[in-house]
Amino acid sequence: MSVTAPLGFRAAGVAAGIKSGGARDLALVVNDGPARAAAGVFTANRVKAAPVLWSQQVLAGGRLRAVVLNSGGANACTGPEGFQDTHATAEKAAGLLDDSAGEIAVCSTGLIGERLPMDVLLSGVETAAGQLSRDGGLAAADAIRTTDTVSKISFKRGSGYMVGGMAKGAGMLAPALATMLCVITTDAELSSEQLDAVLRAATSRTFDRLDTDGCMSTNDTVLLLASGAAGVVPDLAEFEQRVTEVCADLARQLLVDAEGASKAIAIEVVGAASEDDAVKVGRSVARSNLLKCAIHGEDPNWGRVLAAVGTTDAVFEPDRLNVAINGIWICRGGAVGDDRSKVDMRPRDVTITVDLSAGPHTATVHTTDLTADYVHENSAYSS
Amino acid sequence: MSVTAPLGFRAAGVAAGIKSGGARDLALVVNDGPARAAAGVFTANRVKAAPVLWSQQVLAGGRLRAVVLNSGGANACTGPEGFQDTHATAEKAAGLLDDSAGEIAVCSTGLIGERLPMDVLLSGVETAAGQLSRDGGLAAADAIRTTDTVSKISFKRGSGYMVGGMAKGAGMLAPALATMLCVITTDAELSSEQLDAVLRAATSRTFDRLDTDGCMSTNDTVLLLASGAAGVVPDLAEFEQRVTEVCADLARQLLVDAEGASKAIAIEVVGAASEDDAVKVGRSVARSNLLKCAIHGEDPNWGRVLAAVGTTDAVFEPDRLNVAINGIWICRGGAVGDDRSKVDMRPRDVTITVDLSAGPHTATVHTTDLTADYVHENSAYSS
Repeated sequence: MSVTAPLGFRAAGVAAGIKSGGARDLALVVNDGPARAAAGVFTANRVKAAPVLWSQQVLAGGRLRAVVLNSGGANACTGPEGFQDTHATAEKAAGLLDDSAGEIAVCSTGLIGERLPMDVLLSGVETAAGQLSRDGGLAAADAIRTTDTVSKISFKRGSGYMVGGMAKGAGMLAPALATMLCVITTDAELSSEQLDAVLRAATSRTFDRLDTDGCMSTNDTVLLLASGAAGVVPDLAEFEQRVTEVCADLARQLLVDAEGASKAIAIEVVGAASEDDAVKVGRSVARSNLLKCAIHGEDPNWGRVLAAVGTTDAVFEPDRLNVAINGIWICRGGAVGDDRSKVDMRPRDVTITVDLSAGPHTATVHTTDLTADYVHENSAYSS
Repeated sequence: MSVTAPLGFRAAGVAAGIKSGGARDLALVVNDGPARAAAGVFTANRVKAAPVLWSQQVLAGGRLRAVVLNSGGANACTGPEGFQDTHATAEKAAGLLDDSAGEIAVCSTGLIGERLPMDVLLSGVETAAGQLSRDGGLAAADAIRTTDTVSKISFKRGSGYMVGGMAKGAGMLAPALATMLCVITTDAELSSEQLDAVLRAATSRTFDRLDTDGCMSTNDTVLLLASGAAGVVPDLAEFEQRVTEVCADLARQLLVDAEGASKAIAIEVVGAASEDDAVKVGRSVARSNLLKCAIHGEDPNWGRVLAAVGTTDAVFEPDRLNVAINGIWICRGGAVGDDRSKVDMRPRDVTITVDLSAGPHTATVHTTDLTADYVHENSAYSS
């Protein structure tokens, strides 16, 4: 179902030959309308790949006819030539669709610092255009995989409309190669401004709270396209809820597929003076290599949680901090609490609850443990 | 020589029995004067161990008669009882030295969240007081080791005075257990205000630029004590230079002894608009798990360097960034530069040069690679 679950969309996924080995590596998603409002959110990294720079320009117009996505190369740090390659890709798709390149977004994922093989890529766009279909969502989701072990798709039904999506990324554990790309579609009728507000709200509470190694990709892109084909103007609150559900579902799939991880860790911050504080604390805990190693070793090391909390400027008093791991409050008032031997660390899912005792706000940040496999995967890659 | 290289200091290191296994675990450093001016810098972590809270209060007075240091337990996150334990330690030393507890600093290192065995610790203080000698610097340096494989000591000669020091810490790779502790002594005559200014300047360019895993300990402490026994008022610039040399020497020893590391990585940032920018960029690169894995795999992955630079707010243009690894400029103008196969990644020392092309300022941050051994050491510890 994926991006073709909503009416008005066709897609295709083909093996263009960008990757060696014959796997699918190029996807095309087309919005046949009648509307073509769209919005996008992009990596905050100041070193942005050529397709990000291109697609940001395109999205400034608030309209998208199509999205071309490739795996097998990120087209990042490739200079003006790399930008020309992205432009040529959009022009190729525009020619095939008899439309304007100015309404065609491009997404790339793979290794940084290498030019894309443009001959095979452009002929792949042509092949994909010839295979566009209402059933193409799954093939498209498959074609954007890099180190992903499975395709990630989701769809949710609203009142008279659908929201569908696909994503790639192995938990952002390796964003320099495993960039998070996501395309979400709907057949509801919305303006680009509405889509933009909804997408920012949805991603800020889902993808943005997935922090597996603190690294930030040069290519991360999330796009939202509305065809209006269902002829329904949705209730905005309900629509935001559906889009958030699709994003949360895809984010969860990314986390489960994280490279080299043996534990999925949810850091629930409660009792925060603000939601910002809660996110800040959650992110600091999620980025502690020491804690992530401890969780890998099934050691409920609350001292490392406190040490991570202490590096933030969130509102809290050190002697009022409480920490539970898998429901056992092993730290109370900043000191030893319940018996740590009561904590069952065996399940794959680990929940760390941090109570700041400073207010009513909460947030949950998701991460994974740090393993020798992570080191192996990220030291063996690339050369 | 260590902390007893300068005149006016005695020290001892004994096996009190805090650690199992009979290794030395308690050190005492005493300033016999005639002066006792002192200064300290402490962890910026808001979750501070009891000995840090105690010693900060003591140093507010600008004078130190002695320092008691123990390994085998950090006395962090131990509540009011832990603070009382630290206080009792200082009182014990004060009684033995016939002095005031208000001029005795305490430093602890080891596991967080456990009370110290006060009976053995206090009798250890007594034993140490009985063994104080002008030759005790090496035994003291040995007694503060945790996972350190070697003692870290240093001394430098000024014009008519000496500066000596000892430190412990395995590269801050595991600050929750391997806290960085450092005691520096001099027989020159200085005020506590002068010592404070010199110590802040020296540590900000040495220990503060060692960033092996981005984690920040609850116990980090650096103390500087001046006995005035040489009867020399030093030239302040020369004195700052000598103290900085001692700190740099000790910092280098910490880095070389970093747990689980196979590479020592220097990140030289040049062409920065300010020194702050240079440090910020160096630190961001030093904290990239992806890059640290790549260096471990001897992969000169400049894309991951750029991705880390791009997360900062330093002044730079992405298309003017240059990166060299071990002297080969493999990234020029934000894109591919010289042939990456020319980079020799085999040496243990790796230098990554980042040219921001934005100004005349520079800074170097030191880190290590990320290895499966790091994961192993930090997941196996504690329980």
